[in-house]
Amino acid sequence: MSGLDLDTLAPSVAWTGDRIEIIDQTRLPDEFEIIELVSVDAVVDAICRLAVRGAPAIGACGALGIVIGLDERHPEDLPAARSALDELVEVIGSARPTAVNLRWAVERVRDAALEGDTADRLRRMALDEALRIIAEDKDACSRIGEAGRAELTGMTNIMTHCNTGRLATAGWGTALGVIYAKAAAGEPVRVLASETRPLLQGARLTIWELEDAGIDVTLMPDSADAAAMSVGKVDAVIVGADRIAANGDTANKIGTFSHAVNARYAGIPFYVAASLSTFDTAIASGDEITIELRSDDELTAWRGIPTAPAGASVWNPAFDITPAGLITAIFTEVGVLHPPFDVSIPAAVEHAER
Amino acid sequence: MSGLDLDTLAPSVAWTGDRIEIIDQTRLPDEFEIIELVSVDAVVDAICRLAVRGAPAIGACGALGIVIGLDERHPEDLPAARSALDELVEVIGSARPTAVNLRWAVERVRDAALEGDTADRLRRMALDEALRIIAEDKDACSRIGEAGRAELTGMTNIMTHCNTGRLATAGWGTALGVIYAKAAAGEPVRVLASETRPLLQGARLTIWELEDAGIDVTLMPDSADAAAMSVGKVDAVIVGADRIAANGDTANKIGTFSHAVNARYAGIPFYVAASLSTFDTAIASGDEITIELRSDDELTAWRGIPTAPAGASVWNPAFDITPAGLITAIFTEVGVLHPPFDVSIPAAVEHAER
Repeated sequence: MSGLDLDTLAPSVAWTGDRIEIIDQTRLPDEFEIIELVSVDAVVDAICRLAVRGAPAIGACGALGIVIGLDERHPEDLPAARSALDELVEVIGSARPTAVNLRWAVERVRDAALEGDTADRLRRMALDEALRIIAEDKDACSRIGEAGRAELTGMTNIMTHCNTGRLATAGWGTALGVIYAKAAAGEPVRVLASETRPLLQGARLTIWELEDAGIDVTLMPDSADAAAMSVGKVDAVIVGADRIAANGDTANKIGTFSHAVNARYAGIPFYVAASLSTFDTAIASGDEITIELRSDDELTAWRGIPTAPAGASVWNPAFDITPAGLITAIFTEVGVLHPPFDVSIPAAVEHAER
Repeated sequence: MSGLDLDTLAPSVAWTGDRIEIIDQTRLPDEFEIIELVSVDAVVDAICRLAVRGAPAIGACGALGIVIGLDERHPEDLPAARSALDELVEVIGSARPTAVNLRWAVERVRDAALEGDTADRLRRMALDEALRIIAEDKDACSRIGEAGRAELTGMTNIMTHCNTGRLATAGWGTALGVIYAKAAAGEPVRVLASETRPLLQGARLTIWELEDAGIDVTLMPDSADAAAMSVGKVDAVIVGADRIAANGDTANKIGTFSHAVNARYAGIPFYVAASLSTFDTAIASGDEITIELRSDDELTAWRGIPTAPAGASVWNPAFDITPAGLITAIFTEVGVLHPPFDVSIPAAVEHAER
């Protein structure tokens, strides 16, 4: 059976030779529009207003933004180029202050570019490094997807949460990377996507990107997890991760923990898919992760239409922490990590750093 | 400590002597408006467009609607009054074909009214029976609330799902009846209400009615249940029920089962509050209950604004079935039912029918 050709799908961030093209995610799912970014202002604006989102995708866009900035500033000599580089790292790197990947990517581009001994070579090295960051992310996604695909042989009905696909990364995603890998291998796959309140990334983005790829996907309310599992609609659950502690405790979009508890009750395997950059072995367990609370507005209105009384008291945590004990395995670019995670995670991270 | 005076709160359905007053629930939470129903057309319209909702509240409105209809038709003699009665039962009773309570209430009013031997006495007996239906529902709610209150002594932080309060019944509700009973007794109570996607009855209605009563209530996404329980925000969960099988398996709004699984994982008691009319001892277990699937639109748009790609494949079950084994106890108007439910439920139902 011939599979899906992933290279025919529009990526969230692309370099066309002299400009950046991104899918404007603020228009999804109503409209699919690719917009061109040809100035630093446009890059910063796209990042600020979440036209591009997902840590790796933001990093890729910011990295390419440095090149756009050098072309725009057009420095005459090396000192001017270096000075432009510093300014651009500052301007683009602070477009979203909490996005760790963004700052990491623009600084990596700067450090590589500083090796250039003319303004031209500096620009070329900046571009090479930005493209390398994208290539590395694509490669990590492909390896994560393949690791998961091999593990899920024979499992067709996959439930996922939030959006962890090509709209969130420079490649095919983490949890959705596994779905794409199954589709590319010609294996049957059906996805059950939870809405992901309050911002509905599952409903708006995951449904859009899988439908666009021709993959069978069905939307359900977040709270229908138990019902879906009890009637045989789910063979496995796969989610992404925001941060994974040394013991495997996993911070991810609110609702992940609830799905994991339900998977355990139903006897269904629960997997996390994440690149090694998501692991934070400096923290021993999830107890050290503070839960970020987001704005009340996200629960009291949808695009300006009230969904609850204005001024209602709201508890709106951005993520929850799934205890390692509920996780069957973790798919990474260096393979599948199994429990005990407090052994397998430090070993994988250490090996990769060597 | 002096408690909340429940009689100061607006009921969902009231009789003023010559007309029905209802809270227009379609305007909540944006606006609080009490509308008067002075014609059969207005009663049918209010029921059809969900201005009044919740099985017992619809029954109460329909029962009073028969009286409104008799006043409107103004029959000159007994045969004319009896003929009007039959017509009104048909017109009002079919305003929402699937609402079992509605048909039951209007037929009960008709049967009582037929005892009247003049047109005037027929009208008086119809009114008496309608008011008796309301009084019985209020009484059942009060007893359910008191049974739950006594059981929850010392528990302050209560999580609930959907809307099961004075907007859904002619009294103070079932699950929210317990909350009101605690508040009326002057006991401390804090409520955590889940949104209840897709129609957001928790966000729109439960938040409104508890805030209106001055009760401390906080809104959260449905999927935040696991996180809330893990950080100590929940002492007990109380939900209502649509239908309870002889063994205690409970059909209720989608998400109930998921909350019950999470409560079990967290070691938190999970209670159902329901009147005896909700028990269906003709069915042995939840396996015999078919899950109703509702319209895709509920998940793809919110009041006309897209929330997912139009035409997306959707799984939108109206309710789920919580296995009896996850339920700690059931609060009813004849007291608290404990496991084994396949013993306590038939005993309670049989005793009440005697």
